[in-house]
Amino acid sequence: MVVGKVVGSVVATRKNEGLVGSKFMIVEPLSNMSANGRIVAVDNVGAGIGEIVLVALGSAARIGCDMANAPVDAAIVGIVDNSIGLMED
Amino acid sequence: MVVGKVVGSVVATRKNEGLVGSKFMIVEPLSNMSANGRIVAVDNVGAGIGEIVLVALGSAARIGCDMANAPVDAAIVGIVDNSIGLMED
Amino acid sequence: MVVGKVVGSVVATRKNEGLVGSKFMIVEPLSNMSANGRIVAVDNVGAGIGEIVLVALGSAARIGCDMANAPVDAAIVGIVDNSIGLMED
Amino acid sequence: MVVGKVVGSVVATRKNEGLVGSKFMIVEPLSNMSANGRIVAVDNVGAGIGEIVLVALGSAARIGCDMANAPVDAAIVGIVDNSIGLMED
Amino acid sequence: MVVGKVVGSVVATRKNEGLVGSKFMIVEPLSNMSANGRIVAVDNVGAGIGEIVLVALGSAARIGCDMANAPVDAAIVGIVDNSIGLMED
Repeated sequence: MVVGKVVGSVVATRKNEGLVGSKFMIVEPLSNMSANGRIVAVDNVGAGIGEIVLVALGSAARIGCDMANAPVDAAIVGIVDNSIGLMED
Repeated sequence: MVVGKVVGSVVATRKNEGLVGSKFMIVEPLSNMSANGRIVAVDNVGAGIGEIVLVALGSAARIGCDMANAPVDAAIVGIVDNSIGLMED
Repeated sequence: MVVGKVVGSVVATRKNEGLVGSKFMIVEPLSNMSANGRIVAVDNVGAGIGEIVLVALGSAARIGCDMANAPVDAAIVGIVDNSIGLMED
Repeated sequence: MVVGKVVGSVVATRKNEGLVGSKFMIVEPLSNMSANGRIVAVDNVGAGIGEIVLVALGSAARIGCDMANAPVDAAIVGIVDNSIGLMED
Repeated sequence: MVVGKVVGSVVATRKNEGLVGSKFMIVEPLSNMSANGRIVAVDNVGAGIGEIVLVALGSAARIGCDMANAPVDAAIVGIVDNSIGLMED
């Protein structure tokens, strides 16, 4: 997983039916995380813009969030409220 | 998922039989997205060149688009018609 | 998927038994594709050196090419014979 | 898998229910490893901060650690206590 | 798959039980391969340090090497003994 900040959201009226009802948030991974840019993630925990969240990638996002048959490859699965060493070098 | 722009298409007459009937679009992810170049994605929503789309990657593309047995690792699963913070820093 | 050029091949006499009979081609993705170097892909369509091909990555390569139990993470699944916008900026 | 050092941890009170009870460690992959930044991994072996660990990524993390239905894409699966050539060029 | 050179090995006494009995080799992908650093791969073919090997990544490593329930995301699946164009530009 990676930790990032919710920086926006995306709306797609015309979409795959497995995505109907999902909220798509734009997450900016923290700069020291294993990612090379922003991720569009389905919100599984009610995250808002500005929050620091935990994002699961790949099949974990679908299967772990009861969307096994949806075309989802990233999901916000936690809201970070405490950490040790998150931004230290 | 990543958001990108449809910039072209690819035709392959000789191909795996699981791909027959699929349209292959070339998607250029937005520059701030987690991707390091263009992706060839099967079109699942009727996207056209120039449209801004949502692309699912990995097993999500096959399984979420009713192509579970096809060699597909990327699919256009939505057409973006509204967003907050998509291109902001 | 990514589009690339077949630039060579690899032979491994000692290998996992699920790979016996497979041809391993070296594919150089086009420079604007989402890849950061060459991929060794099983040939599923009879591609030759110098051809421009479509490569599927990840579980799609195994499952989509009737090699579900083989240790294969990349497969050539089409030969590109036409395209729009493939190399444009 | 990649080898890295445990450099911190993350707490998320509000999270996907499949993650309840898991410990989330921040792992900094060694600089020569195939990774481009820190990974948040579920701890499967009782690793502490400062330890050098083996991290499995992708579906292997869920399925190999008896968390097949949890949104987990990285797990610490071993503590490295000996190596040959780990940091050599 | 990627081609690389076996440059070392890792020992983890404390580890996930699905990994007991596996040998963990450090593979340095060839510089023109699609990888951004060294990979720790389970040895499926009896590879030794210095050998040039074929490495399968992701679910292919587990499923293709009869370790479907182990937290393994990379495996050495062949020893390269011949090639065309492997290191050419």
